[in-house]
Amino acid sequence: MIVIISNKVSEERIDEIVQHIEKHELQAHVSKGVDRTVIGIIGNAHPQLSEQLRQLSDVEQVVKISKSYKLASRDFHPLDTVIKIKDVEIGGEQLVIMGGPCAVESPQQIDEIARIVKAAGAQVLRGGAFKPRTGPYSFQGIGVEGLEMMAEAGKKHGLLTITEVMTPEYVDVCAEYADILQVGTRNMQNFDLLRKLGTIKTPVLLKRGFSSTYDEFLNAAEYILAGGNPNVMLCERGIRTFESYTRNTLDLAAVPALQSLSHLPVIADPSHGTGRRELVEPMSKAAVAAGANGLIVEMHTDPDNSMTGDGVQSLFPQQFAKLMQDLEQLAPLCGKSFDTKKDTIVV
Amino acid sequence: MIVIISNKVSEERIDEIVQHIEKHELQAHVSKGVDRTVIGIIGNAHPQLSEQLRQLSDVEQVVKISKSYKLASRDFHPLDTVIKIKDVEIGGEQLVIMGGPCAVESPQQIDEIARIVKAAGAQVLRGGAFKPRTGPYSFQGIGVEGLEMMAEAGKKHGLLTITEVMTPEYVDVCAEYADILQVGTRNMQNFDLLRKLGTIKTPVLLKRGFSSTYDEFLNAAEYILAGGNPNVMLCERGIRTFESYTRNTLDLAAVPALQSLSHLPVIADPSHGTGRRELVEPMSKAAVAAGANGLIVEMHTDPDNSMTGDGVQSLFPQQFAKLMQDLEQLAPLCGKSFDTKKDTIVV
Amino acid sequence: MIVIISNKVSEERIDEIVQHIEKHELQAHVSKGVDRTVIGIIGNAHPQLSEQLRQLSDVEQVVKISKSYKLASRDFHPLDTVIKIKDVEIGGEQLVIMGGPCAVESPQQIDEIARIVKAAGAQVLRGGAFKPRTGPYSFQGIGVEGLEMMAEAGKKHGLLTITEVMTPEYVDVCAEYADILQVGTRNMQNFDLLRKLGTIKTPVLLKRGFSSTYDEFLNAAEYILAGGNPNVMLCERGIRTFESYTRNTLDLAAVPALQSLSHLPVIADPSHGTGRRELVEPMSKAAVAAGANGLIVEMHTDPDNSMTGDGVQSLFPQQFAKLMQDLEQLAPLCGKSFDTKKDTIVV
Amino acid sequence: MIVIISNKVSEERIDEIVQHIEKHELQAHVSKGVDRTVIGIIGNAHPQLSEQLRQLSDVEQVVKISKSYKLASRDFHPLDTVIKIKDVEIGGEQLVIMGGPCAVESPQQIDEIARIVKAAGAQVLRGGAFKPRTGPYSFQGIGVEGLEMMAEAGKKHGLLTITEVMTPEYVDVCAEYADILQVGTRNMQNFDLLRKLGTIKTPVLLKRGFSSTYDEFLNAAEYILAGGNPNVMLCERGIRTFESYTRNTLDLAAVPALQSLSHLPVIADPSHGTGRRELVEPMSKAAVAAGANGLIVEMHTDPDNSMTGDGVQSLFPQQFAKLMQDLEQLAPLCGKSFDTKKDTIVV
Repeated sequence: MIVIISNKVSEERIDEIVQHIEKHELQAHVSKGVDRTVIGIIGNAHPQLSEQLRQLSDVEQVVKISKSYKLASRDFHPLDTVIKIKDVEIGGEQLVIMGGPCAVESPQQIDEIARIVKAAGAQVLRGGAFKPRTGPYSFQGIGVEGLEMMAEAGKKHGLLTITEVMTPEYVDVCAEYADILQVGTRNMQNFDLLRKLGTIKTPVLLKRGFSSTYDEFLNAAEYILAGGNPNVMLCERGIRTFESYTRNTLDLAAVPALQSLSHLPVIADPSHGTGRRELVEPMSKAAVAAGANGLIVEMHTDPDNSMTGDGVQSLFPQQFAKLMQDLEQLAPLCGKSFDTKKDTIVV
Repeated sequence: MIVIISNKVSEERIDEIVQHIEKHELQAHVSKGVDRTVIGIIGNAHPQLSEQLRQLSDVEQVVKISKSYKLASRDFHPLDTVIKIKDVEIGGEQLVIMGGPCAVESPQQIDEIARIVKAAGAQVLRGGAFKPRTGPYSFQGIGVEGLEMMAEAGKKHGLLTITEVMTPEYVDVCAEYADILQVGTRNMQNFDLLRKLGTIKTPVLLKRGFSSTYDEFLNAAEYILAGGNPNVMLCERGIRTFESYTRNTLDLAAVPALQSLSHLPVIADPSHGTGRRELVEPMSKAAVAAGANGLIVEMHTDPDNSMTGDGVQSLFPQQFAKLMQDLEQLAPLCGKSFDTKKDTIVV
Repeated sequence: MIVIISNKVSEERIDEIVQHIEKHELQAHVSKGVDRTVIGIIGNAHPQLSEQLRQLSDVEQVVKISKSYKLASRDFHPLDTVIKIKDVEIGGEQLVIMGGPCAVESPQQIDEIARIVKAAGAQVLRGGAFKPRTGPYSFQGIGVEGLEMMAEAGKKHGLLTITEVMTPEYVDVCAEYADILQVGTRNMQNFDLLRKLGTIKTPVLLKRGFSSTYDEFLNAAEYILAGGNPNVMLCERGIRTFESYTRNTLDLAAVPALQSLSHLPVIADPSHGTGRRELVEPMSKAAVAAGANGLIVEMHTDPDNSMTGDGVQSLFPQQFAKLMQDLEQLAPLCGKSFDTKKDTIVV
Repeated sequence: MIVIISNKVSEERIDEIVQHIEKHELQAHVSKGVDRTVIGIIGNAHPQLSEQLRQLSDVEQVVKISKSYKLASRDFHPLDTVIKIKDVEIGGEQLVIMGGPCAVESPQQIDEIARIVKAAGAQVLRGGAFKPRTGPYSFQGIGVEGLEMMAEAGKKHGLLTITEVMTPEYVDVCAEYADILQVGTRNMQNFDLLRKLGTIKTPVLLKRGFSSTYDEFLNAAEYILAGGNPNVMLCERGIRTFESYTRNTLDLAAVPALQSLSHLPVIADPSHGTGRRELVEPMSKAAVAAGANGLIVEMHTDPDNSMTGDGVQSLFPQQFAKLMQDLEQLAPLCGKSFDTKKDTIVV
């Protein structure tokens, strides 16, 4: 950590600040420059110290050199985290595809979609039972019943399942039915939810907040890791910018950047990341080329009548199957293997 | 609502879309233009209809004309909402000032600050017992004990109190101790929390998410209102932009804009809105000049040693008292009255 | 300047970097921390050095402590710059108001508007002869003729004039007719234009680029100052964010922030800053309360038929006159005086 | 075009607005809804009409249905534009790579880099002679001499050349030496420059402004096309967001989105788009997978000592050569061919 102080500040005050640092059993190296004095702090500083120093009244700037997260950082854990769930390995060589509707609507709907997802070669069935919606009058999901329907469809077709959990009190029931729990973009900093997810071992897919920095994203992951759950994957799903043609701006540089800062697997969401069906295919390929460990893609058998209104970003089954074929060719060029245990697809 | 369709789409398909609209007991006025056909929809459409129409595969664009929120809109409720708590009226002529530390730290700290807040002429004591922090290793607040300390200080000095609630399960205990519950920026779209707050009558100060639009903000308020709690105030606290000199960019146009779109009181937060002590005073005045119904301002007796690291944006007591004097002069020019039941300040 | 290097880098490489620094006749103070080595650089470094050091392959981060601009900074020039043009002083006690249409349309139009501007108590007439337009098919301004019309109207009514210049080759002709030259937001980093403006003495109002940081803004001013023209005023005119209800987000914290970083006068533009007529009045007051040295406000006698389409953000004459009356009351509370040499207004 | 008016507005006023529309020889279809009246406008409206209507005082909203640009739109020109320069075709099947240093520094430097660029299989040599720099004290390029050096290197090694032009008066000299002229991000809306480029036939690579929408970007292209120069390519080079880990956020969805809105070729710039050398390779691949017609990539033989400080985002020669090999494999999977007329590379 480095503390920068104007030279207009008195020597006595600088000494006080140095003593403040040394109280924490750290060393302070003082360099007097032309306009400013720089104090370099050496030793294992508590993460909160930078906050304390920043607010000292004569301190102009505090530069953190070490990161504020530990367990999530690659410095701390140099090897890739590979999360193994049944026969699927997320974070390793396998390119993992999660496909399915925005929301579970009925047993028939989710069963039919699961069949297509499996046939196309994907490994995970996605579907929401609890839906976070901007307004209170929109469809909010069908709740626990939806969890049951999806679990059954997943079991029948040999797919893992992932579903979103929105509040601490539903973590246990969601974990009972689903293999992976998703934290949505609006809840990335719902710290009580993150803390609760730290107390279980079910893998968590944490979506980036739509205006969160990489640093905040990894700090949110740190909440779960610090609680004792090491099974966290990061999901880039687009950030909010001034561009309104796309629903969000998919920040694909986040894929290699997060993989360099952290050891956790990185999944991309081209559906929410663009909000437009015709952009899902090119951005899925781009995400794989950028090195993503997997994709989470919306697909619906009847997107015109999806209950959430997200049909506009859902692929048709044929498009999903075609995308999977393309990814099968692309994956090996990107250091990934594509799971070939797929059935013949009959759409 | 208006639906726009390319003229490349067949007549039959357009007829289908018209029938889809008429099924909802709405009228569809079709206008055929040079390149596109426009369908104007007349009648009381369900808010979800626009989502359904947007995803129809040949629909190019859906333009919502009516707003997606109702109870929060000024169309629905033309007169200003005035929230009366004891002798304080928020949303009326009175300029309401909420002052206090970022976090409650000890009985002595909050008592001393409450004394200064009261003496300066403010009406509400702010202070956090549960703190949302970016990383898990930062100080997370002292919890229920803090609620007790603040309630006592408020009572002793004749101040209302406001505190943040982060998760549904703590709503009841926070409402037991505080007069106003605050929803922080990270929780603006924590829908389970909003729903829970809709079930009580305690006034809620809802902070704008740091990258939320006015529309999303008012939809979040709608969740609380729709649940049955009419006592909602909106708080502009700065949005996230590319500028990093300030912690956030305080969007003061939100004050008159929200007052025009909605009947709810609008409070400004110049402390989080700038993140820099020296900008709090000019931006407080600017917020009042823009028409804010009140301010929420951080003040600390020892900001150099505040436990949250937010001291850098906290006023010193003398600065807070001086600001109150300035606002007393400014308020009448902005159509507001300033509460003068203040004691002699002895800092 | 501070250079941060990982401790995984060899001692020899660190020595090389130190020698690289010392070659520039600077001192390098090396502090070895737990994970990283920090080199503090002391002496008067060339601004370009930080760029050179940042690209050295083992350098992790370079922290600039001194600012990259000099002449624009308050460190270099502690007293406020006051630009005197005839009897108007911009940057001093006087609150300076620039009013007028988006574009000069005819001699009658600009004469009538000038009369109203003067009568309301403003000091400067604004009006565009060359208009930067998003598309090539929009009205592009009437050119040099417009300059003549405005100069005449200004002279007749005793007003200074300000107009936009878009390209170096028109600087001289614009300076011949107008008292102040405006650089628009799209040209803030049109460096050839800035360099040309540095060669004359005509005062320049430099608008902030719509996604420029304070640092880039002051560096753009530095181009003009470094060329030899000290008469620069900064104009905050709103930045681009995700919010689309307003045309831009007026960043009023820029007013006190820029005044603290720089000695140059700061003018606010609530018309472009909001893009909505009904927000111009509250944001004008807010800007003055935040400490602005002046305002530039669009007003039109027939905004429904303005040629640029900016009528939607132009005040009607009565609104302009009323705003001036309000500002006359507000100014003294904000440490400013309001020029009272106004005629009786007859709109 | 659709005009939306509140039903609080009188019938007479609505009639006036209808007459205003009909004066332009257009038809107005009026639909009266519950709260609002909608006027659909049919006929070939002048692009400026929407601006005029928007400012009518009782108009609430104007929705443009047709685009404001014509020549740049795919509706107008359904087939891809292919720009042929000597034996290179940009916009067709060929994947076009432009490589080279940020700035031309010396004849030896540019010659050596040209050799490597050619050997690796790229078709175009990039290099700046006039450099737009944030501050006036940074290296501003070596000017016309640099143009000469680059032209010579290009000729010797059989490469096309591309260089940036910053101001109208230098267009002719730049066009004399270079095969392609680049308009930088800061000049995307330098309309005098765009107009000048419309008067020549030299191909132009137009970079997206760092906070420009697709609509503004295509309108900027329209300036050049409308002037008579059909040879425009669009370059996505990253936009400005709150994320500061990367220099910009490369918006790869812009590639397929612009290709769908327009017929012009789209080039991606992963160097400026990320600002970090280690992200250039994954983002180059991602851009190609997203369907880019080409890439513009910075490479330097001695990035530690580049004169602009952009070395940090420049590839080393070996990295550039390796990237070209990877792209050669990737291109066919993305519907592109890779030029194989490359020499054996000897770095």
